[in-house]
This record gives sequence, structure tokens and C-alpha cells, in this order.
Amino acid sequence: MVEVTPESSGPIYGVINEASDDESRVAVTPDVVRRLRKTGVPCLVESGAGMASHYSDDLYRDAGATVTDRDAVLARSDVLGFVSRPAPDLLDGIRPGTWIAGMLQSLTDQPYIDLLAAHRLVGIAMERLPRRLSSAQSMDEMTSQNSVMGYKAVLVAANAYGSFLPMMTTAAGTVRPAKVLVLGAGIAGLQAIGTARRLGAVVTAYDVRDASRSEVESLGASFLDLGVDLSSGQGEGGYARELTEDEKAAQQAAVDRRAAEFDIVITTAKVPGRRPPRLLTSSGVAGLRRGAVVVDCAASDLGGNVEGSVPGTLVTDNGVTLIGAPNLASEVPDTASALLSRNLADTVTHFITGSRLERTADDLGEALVVTPVVSSDASVESDPQEGE
Amino acid sequence: MVEVTPESSGPIYGVINEASDDESRVAVTPDVVRRLRKTGVPCLVESGAGMASHYSDDLYRDAGATVTDRDAVLARSDVLGFVSRPAPDLLDGIRPGTWIAGMLQSLTDQPYIDLLAAHRLVGIAMERLPRRLSSAQSMDEMTSQNSVMGYKAVLVAANAYGSFLPMMTTAAGTVRPAKVLVLGAGIAGLQAIGTARRLGAVVTAYDVRDASRSEVESLGASFLDLGVDLSSGQGEGGYARELTEDEKAAQQAAVDRRAAEFDIVITTAKVPGRRPPRLLTSSGVAGLRRGAVVVDCAASDLGGNVEGSVPGTLVTDNGVTLIGAPNLASEVPDTASALLSRNLADTVTHFITGSRLERTADDLGEALVVTPVVSSDASVESDPQEGE
Repeated sequence: MVEVTPESSGPIYGVINEASDDESRVAVTPDVVRRLRKTGVPCLVESGAGMASHYSDDLYRDAGATVTDRDAVLARSDVLGFVSRPAPDLLDGIRPGTWIAGMLQSLTDQPYIDLLAAHRLVGIAMERLPRRLSSAQSMDEMTSQNSVMGYKAVLVAANAYGSFLPMMTTAAGTVRPAKVLVLGAGIAGLQAIGTARRLGAVVTAYDVRDASRSEVESLGASFLDLGVDLSSGQGEGGYARELTEDEKAAQQAAVDRRAAEFDIVITTAKVPGRRPPRLLTSSGVAGLRRGAVVVDCAASDLGGNVEGSVPGTLVTDNGVTLIGAPNLASEVPDTASALLSRNLADTVTHFITGSRLERTADDLGEALVVTPVVSSDASVESDPQEGE
Repeated sequence: MVEVTPESSGPIYGVINEASDDESRVAVTPDVVRRLRKTGVPCLVESGAGMASHYSDDLYRDAGATVTDRDAVLARSDVLGFVSRPAPDLLDGIRPGTWIAGMLQSLTDQPYIDLLAAHRLVGIAMERLPRRLSSAQSMDEMTSQNSVMGYKAVLVAANAYGSFLPMMTTAAGTVRPAKVLVLGAGIAGLQAIGTARRLGAVVTAYDVRDASRSEVESLGASFLDLGVDLSSGQGEGGYARELTEDEKAAQQAAVDRRAAEFDIVITTAKVPGRRPPRLLTSSGVAGLRRGAVVVDCAASDLGGNVEGSVPGTLVTDNGVTLIGAPNLASEVPDTASALLSRNLADTVTHFITGSRLERTADDLGEALVVTPVVSSDASVESDPQEGE
């Protein structure tokens, strides 16, 4: 079924259709199929996998992929790429020794990792890649997807807002520019700042990390002065650390007070695997003016950055539109898939030595939550062991 | 009920709640209430009239308006302002001699104008104001609302599009900018061009009017070269004239052919009171790539600029998202209302001489589709006569 041409003697990369109501992305795009083929990796793609992100089966075929059914993809691939991760009930259909690359939730779901091990599957946990390492930059899914999220958060806010973002001078009077507050100035926040500035809004941002002030200001936005000391808020790995209770209270009171000046508030402080920090309380929301719009990118069943936000849109008693948007990257699926596919492909390619999948001795090897062993007949198998 | 203070001895301006599923605008905002009061015009506002555009009753009261019920507004006002026009069943509740300012549809609905006359109401048809006259610029509702429409059309398109509008260079590859085609380069089209350019898209535009090429190019967009002669397309009053059948066929074939190069197509060619011109046929839509987005601002029950578009969103068999958006100005209600209110207030104020409503001798008087007569006791009444 898979054409093994001279240049495609490497492991077979497979991708299934993960589309659902909440997910429109796909783990490989036709462009990335071409890229993988150039490195000798043939692709198996489930029919329809790219339809929600506008990549038709024909486009995959034109790029040289084999389009087939799900069972064949699962059974015949040497490495499977996922936007998310395979549901447990799919694991029985995957050959032992197969590598699984995806957001495996290894930081919060050890039982799932154990399950991979029990099926003798090798797990590449994308969330464990050392994102600060320059060699891992093109594999960093958090960065690529959060960037898309920040862009989309502004479009969603602008679309829900009843006035213009840019200043407009017309014969019937001048419309003042919207005042936008971005809370959380990581990758998503910086992209939100840039996009809101493009649209002509006056942008202010805030983050507990000291380093973010200069980043915010370099994009032409103001850094919100809370008048309280919340210094040294940078945690491990570049993520915002969780604040102490006292700091949280001081921060919340100050942010809640200052938020009332703004027309649009966008919160982007996701902390992988943990409950998102509270950045705006109900009292902050109550202080916003009628017609203000809040987009909470961290909204989830565990809560969000904004008290009272839930996935979806609600209008508060005081006329504030509160949008809980947990899956914004998936709502720009064509681009999000293109970037994510490249992240996955570069990661998978990193673990190919010659024509075989192998653990590398470098720091990237730490992303393998279930590591492979090489059996005597040189076929790749997995060595069940606990993730970190 | 209406406080007549020394500075408010002019005619009473009244506005009712026109909000519906399709309409979120209001015909007076609190800022315009203040403006009218300064010229001696007190305001009566129906309770809740501004809620859909985020102007609460309290804001109207703070601005000095009297907030009351609909019957009182209709019965006690000397001049009523409308986003649209009063429904026929409301006319009985309005005092004879009252002036009605709104989009009266006088160009297409003479029976309605006759009805106004029969009720001895004076009609100010906003659609008849001589928009090219500099003194009428601040009264030009077509300009203000089409400007809002053009802005919103781009946000709607960007929000529906699966990729970025701007070019982005990331560690996981470069995302190319979206290619946007704007068909119809009037007020709405020019605003759409500007907004798409702000967002980083590469913009091309087209209009049958010769003059539009330099306007398009001055905004940094390219003018679409169709390779067919469609010159001298400017009609009366600055609107695009309807093309001849031969011109239409040549234009359509060329536009359909060229449209395939674009990711987003926005059509803005509304012709007041007439069926909108066809700018993209089914074959043009069929030629667009999967994932392309079309926003047809002229979509209506009479058809739109795009063959097959209907109000609402549909996805074609070839994966094109086709959005028929007849009421985009109403979807940015806070700003649209602010501009529209100013248009109406300046128009009404123009017809106040001393403390009375009177027809003016200038060209603006031509907007009166039912003209007033002054009776012997100097109260204002209407003189039933046909509109132009």
C-alpha cells in the first residue's frame, strides 16, 4: 500500500483524522508531507484528516502521501503524529514499537503514559521538549499554537466589540481608538499586542515576569503599572510561576481596579497542566463598562484567568461580553496545522538516525516519556518505564 | 414630562427602541443628546432604546434626555429620528405635523411616502440628502454606515478565514500573507481596503468607476486589471451605475477568472433601492480554493453581489465559506449608532429656524418627501404631496 521509493526508505509517518466539534487541526499538511518525503519519510494519511483545515485528500495525494483508512494508518505506521494524543481505545490497533508524537499530557496524566508503556509504544511528549534550546525552536508546539491563539484572540475580541479598534475621523465625528488590556505577555500575549496594535488599538499589557516589560514596550504597548510589588514572577522553563496568595490578592485588586479603564481585556496566562492563574475577579468584571469585551484564552473546566468565564460567550448583568475561548488555535486551523505539522515533523525527524527511529543522547531525548529499546534483530521496540 | 429649560425651547426630538434580531443600532446616543441640548433641542428617548448598542437609560438621563415609554415618545415629539423608518402601524400614534427623519426608502416605496402624507407627517428622507454637498457631509448616513460596514466586513472575513492575514515568520516556518480582493471601491470598499491592509493582508481592489483606481492605489492596494474595457462606469450621485449586459458579461468572466488567485473576496456594491450588481458568479465561486472566504455585503432577498449568497453563512461543495452579510453596520452598533445619530441630529438641526422646524430653501430641502406648510397660527403642519 505504501509506495517505498528509493528516497523514502525511512520510517513511515502516519496521521489520522482528529477533527471534532472542538478540534479542526490536522497533524500533517501537504507541504509537510513534501518536506518529510525529502528526508526519506513516506506519509500515510487517513482520508478526510485535513478537511476541517481545508486540506483535501487530493492535496495530500499530490504531495505524495498515501491516503487510506484509519485502521491502516494505525497498523502500518512506524511513527504517528497527533494534534492531541491517541484515545486509549485506539492503542490496541497500533503495532508495538510504534512511536507516538503528540501533546501526551505527560505532566498531569501518568496513567495514560503507563498505558502507552503497557502497549509497548514509544511516547514523544511534545510538551516536554526543552523549548529554550535553539535546536528545539522549530519543534515548539506551545510557541506556534500560542502565537496563533494570541492573533485569534484579538480578532474574536474585535468582532464582538461594538465599536472600532482604530481611531477614525469622519464627517460625522471622530471615533476614539479602543483601549485594549492584555494580561499575560508570553508568546500569546505578545502576538495579541501586535495584532491589536495593527488594528489601531491603544494597547497596555501586564505580566508578572520582570522581563516582559521591555518586550511589551518594544511592541509599542504600555506596561500596566499596578503600583504593587510583584517582582521576580518568572518561574521555571519560562512559564509564569503561580503567585503566592498575598501576591495574588494584591495583583487582583490592582488589576481589577485598573481594568475599568479598558474596552477590551484579553487574558492569555495558561500554565500547562495546572489550573490557570486568576487574573481578573468578578469584581474586576463588574467594574468594566457596558459594552466592554473580555476574551479569556485560559477558560477551561478547571476555571480560567477570569472569574466566571466558561467556554463560550455570555453577557454579564452589567453588559460585559465575556468570551471563554479554550481552543483558539484550532479556530485558525489552516495555519495552526501548518505550524504544528512542522513542529511534529521536525521532532520526529530529529529521532531518525539513518533510516531508524532512535532515542538521541541530547536533551531532546528527555521528551521521550516511554523510551525505546533496540532488540537483537534491530527492530525498534519500546521499553516500558515510567515517564519523568 | 419633558423639562423645558431656558436653553431647550426648540422642537422636541424623539427616538424609540428599534432593536430587533437584525438591528442593534439606535437613532440617538447620549453624546448626541448633549449636542442637541446645546442647540436648544430637548430629547425624549424610549426606555431601553440604546441597550443593544450599550447605551443604558442612565447614560441618556445623565446626558439630559427624558427616558419614557414608546407611546409618550411618539405622541409628544416634534421630530422623530429613526435608524430605519416607523412601521405603518406606528403612524396613528404620531401627532399630525410631526417630522420623521430616517431611511424612508422613498426611492422604492412610494406607497409608504403616501402613507406619511396621509397622516400629515413631514418626511425627511435621509437617502435623498445631496451627499456631494459639503454642507451635507456630516448628515450623510450612507457614508457613515458604509464605512462601518467596510471595517466589519474585513473582521468577519478574517475571523472566518483559517489562516493569518499578516505574514508571520516563525521558527516553524513562514506564513504568507492573505490575498484579499475587494470588489466595489466606494466608501465601504475603501474602508475594507484600509482595514485589511492594517491587518497585513495584500490587497487588490476593483470598481467600475474610473476614479476609484487612484483612490485604491493611494491606500496601498493594487487595482485589479481585468483586461477588458469597462470605463465610464460612474453613475449619477456618485453611486456605481448598473453596467450594460455586455459589460456585465465581460466583467463577470474576467472577475471570475481572476478571483481564483485570492484567499478572501469582499463585495461591497450596494445600489440604493435596486437589485445589487452581480460581481462574482457561481463559476467564480467554484474557482476559489478550498478555505477561501467570501463576504457579500450586498446579500439580500433580492440577491447579492455574489451568485448564490444568502444572508448567513454557508460552505460550498468546494469548501468556500460564503457569508451573506446584509446588516454589518448594525453589528458594530455602538459606533454605527454614534455616527448615525450625529447624521440625524445635524439633519434635523438644519431644518430648525429659530425654534421651529421649517423647510429650507437650499438643496437639502429636497430631502423632504412630504413638505410642511405653515398654518396661520404658526404651528407646523404637513402638506400631503407626492415625493419626487
